[in-house]
Amino acid sequence: MQIGGTHYRTIWPAGDGSAVLIIDQTKLPFAFETCRLTTSAEAAHAIRAMIVRGAPLIGATAAWGVALAMRVDAADAALADAIAELGATRPTAVNLHWALQRMEGLLRPLAPAQRPQAAWNAAIAICDEDAATCRAIGEHGLPLLRAAAARRNGATLNILTHCNAGWLACVDYGTALAPIYLAHDAGIDVHVFVDETRPRNQGASLTAYELGAHGVPHTIIADNAGGHLMQHGKVDLCIVGTDRTTAHGDVANKIGTYLKALAAFDNNVPFYVALPFSTIDWSIGDGVAGIPIEERSAREVTHMTGMDGDGRVTTVRIAAPGSTAANPAFDVTPARLVTALITERGVTPATQTGLAALYPQSERITA
Amino acid sequence: MQIGGTHYRTIWPAGDGSAVLIIDQTKLPFAFETCRLTTSAEAAHAIRAMIVRGAPLIGATAAWGVALAMRVDAADAALADAIAELGATRPTAVNLHWALQRMEGLLRPLAPAQRPQAAWNAAIAICDEDAATCRAIGEHGLPLLRAAAARRNGATLNILTHCNAGWLACVDYGTALAPIYLAHDAGIDVHVFVDETRPRNQGASLTAYELGAHGVPHTIIADNAGGHLMQHGKVDLCIVGTDRTTAHGDVANKIGTYLKALAAFDNNVPFYVALPFSTIDWSIGDGVAGIPIEERSAREVTHMTGMDGDGRVTTVRIAAPGSTAANPAFDVTPARLVTALITERGVTPATQTGLAALYPQSERITA
Repeated sequence: MQIGGTHYRTIWPAGDGSAVLIIDQTKLPFAFETCRLTTSAEAAHAIRAMIVRGAPLIGATAAWGVALAMRVDAADAALADAIAELGATRPTAVNLHWALQRMEGLLRPLAPAQRPQAAWNAAIAICDEDAATCRAIGEHGLPLLRAAAARRNGATLNILTHCNAGWLACVDYGTALAPIYLAHDAGIDVHVFVDETRPRNQGASLTAYELGAHGVPHTIIADNAGGHLMQHGKVDLCIVGTDRTTAHGDVANKIGTYLKALAAFDNNVPFYVALPFSTIDWSIGDGVAGIPIEERSAREVTHMTGMDGDGRVTTVRIAAPGSTAANPAFDVTPARLVTALITERGVTPATQTGLAALYPQSERITA
Repeated sequence: MQIGGTHYRTIWPAGDGSAVLIIDQTKLPFAFETCRLTTSAEAAHAIRAMIVRGAPLIGATAAWGVALAMRVDAADAALADAIAELGATRPTAVNLHWALQRMEGLLRPLAPAQRPQAAWNAAIAICDEDAATCRAIGEHGLPLLRAAAARRNGATLNILTHCNAGWLACVDYGTALAPIYLAHDAGIDVHVFVDETRPRNQGASLTAYELGAHGVPHTIIADNAGGHLMQHGKVDLCIVGTDRTTAHGDVANKIGTYLKALAAFDNNVPFYVALPFSTIDWSIGDGVAGIPIEERSAREVTHMTGMDGDGRVTTVRIAAPGSTAANPAFDVTPARLVTALITERGVTPATQTGLAALYPQSERITA
């Protein structure tokens, strides 16, 4: 997508092949800086230190890490070492292991001499495929936005989103934001209400940043505000991403998504969930009962990081001293609250039948 | 309530009558400091600068401001001046004007020589009445908590609250927190999930502070987390306050209350609203259509104040530079989502019939 009129992906090879470049997401939204990765150790560090984040981007970075390793030493032991090192960075990220398994499956049968170029090409392919998947999500979502915009009779189409399911989490386009970017680029008058998404504030920082950089009109709101806006007709539809989608269409997404889905349902506002096939976990039906929810550090709730008046990035305690916090990172929105799922294969009701019709048994991934 | 084992109200006369003391709420939760008010101008400043806040406490402070003015000059002109100065501090606070009208109605018929003592006594009475009203709310709510605790069979009773409807907003006890304090003091094993309540964070700062100071176990959560906790049976009941209650039982409270009420309803968790009669606006039926919602500064969303690592209170920008924010301060929870209203007169369904039965026509206040 665009930053200041220039097209970027979140990860790309240098033109001379000397390195892989990434956007340093730890500096966002206050500075746009790129980093050069020249070794698999640097790629592993970038994942571990969350210089890159977002499941698809983590997978792509790991693939590039293997490609960088193969340039130094393409022997079997070096391949195994690189995969082990990269695989240990974020053990819970499904895409990370998917990407590493794919690289290993491709490279191991090859002679070491063939591996460097094959790995480089495969990393490019993984990135291109992720961008294509996200673009397809956008193209399948676009008609929904176009129809909603038509019902607005020329007034701005207001869309609410939660957390960051944008291109910064992927290679390009994003998932939930892909239809929005395509609608904006097609000249549809869209405006996005961006939930700030406490406690990590990915909405106010990353989503607001990337929408702003691409020129999409948007307004940050406290996570508390969406219900009120929906009660007063100020939200035409919601689109969010998902970290795990069950076979029945329940979706685990960033904490607070469920509350917005309840408000959308209560006010007859369509609530769409955008996802690539890789988030579907065919082994689980009931998401509330079946999806384990990560409990993260209390410090994410009790402290907040931002830029002070002198331009320094500073962390402050915002909670009463002595009080602690709980920090569940995700919640599950039952399929009954989801209007439809937008996938790279098309739009489907959030039902077992709908999902099964899009994805034949042979293509299914179980966690 | 208690701070460090000592009983405090939020406002009280000095033992020697030389001044009125308040807790400086701008310093909370990072420091507990008291201020002396010796003139009506100081009382007006305390209200304007939000050194005191919360509708009942604002009213009490204004009454004390009149009492302080009468000690210097009890003539008609001085009385009118004091009322005008205090009335201009927070023009939208209903209790402020109620308290000033009461003081004026009492003092104007009196000879100036009688006014200083009468005003002092009236300010004491207003504070005592507010404390008694809040205590009565607590006593009417206590049986609900006792019954819920009994159903827990000895396990901790988990209560969720939003914003600060505690004693810091009143003179003592609070509204939503009054039943919780009484339950805790009665030996019931209560634990409170405290919504941080973005954007102003009154939950994480004030509610957590006052619960902690009184020794009530509590855990701060992001506003996004309540629905997930309710889905998993971790919340036994919710209690919140209200800034305005309609004749039909709709309640306008801090933004985000509606989302929690939806989650409570979806998970069969009782959702109680605690209120003194002074919040009921008999002129409005449908709260969503009828209650105007204050839009506050975007800066409350884009910036955050806390204590940095060096112990300095610092404000940081947390939103992407260039992005702006919307900041509706309240939302309306329809009566259909409210299990019951807890008032100083008793517990009633959130219905027109229920409210009318508690409050005869002659006692009703219209905004």
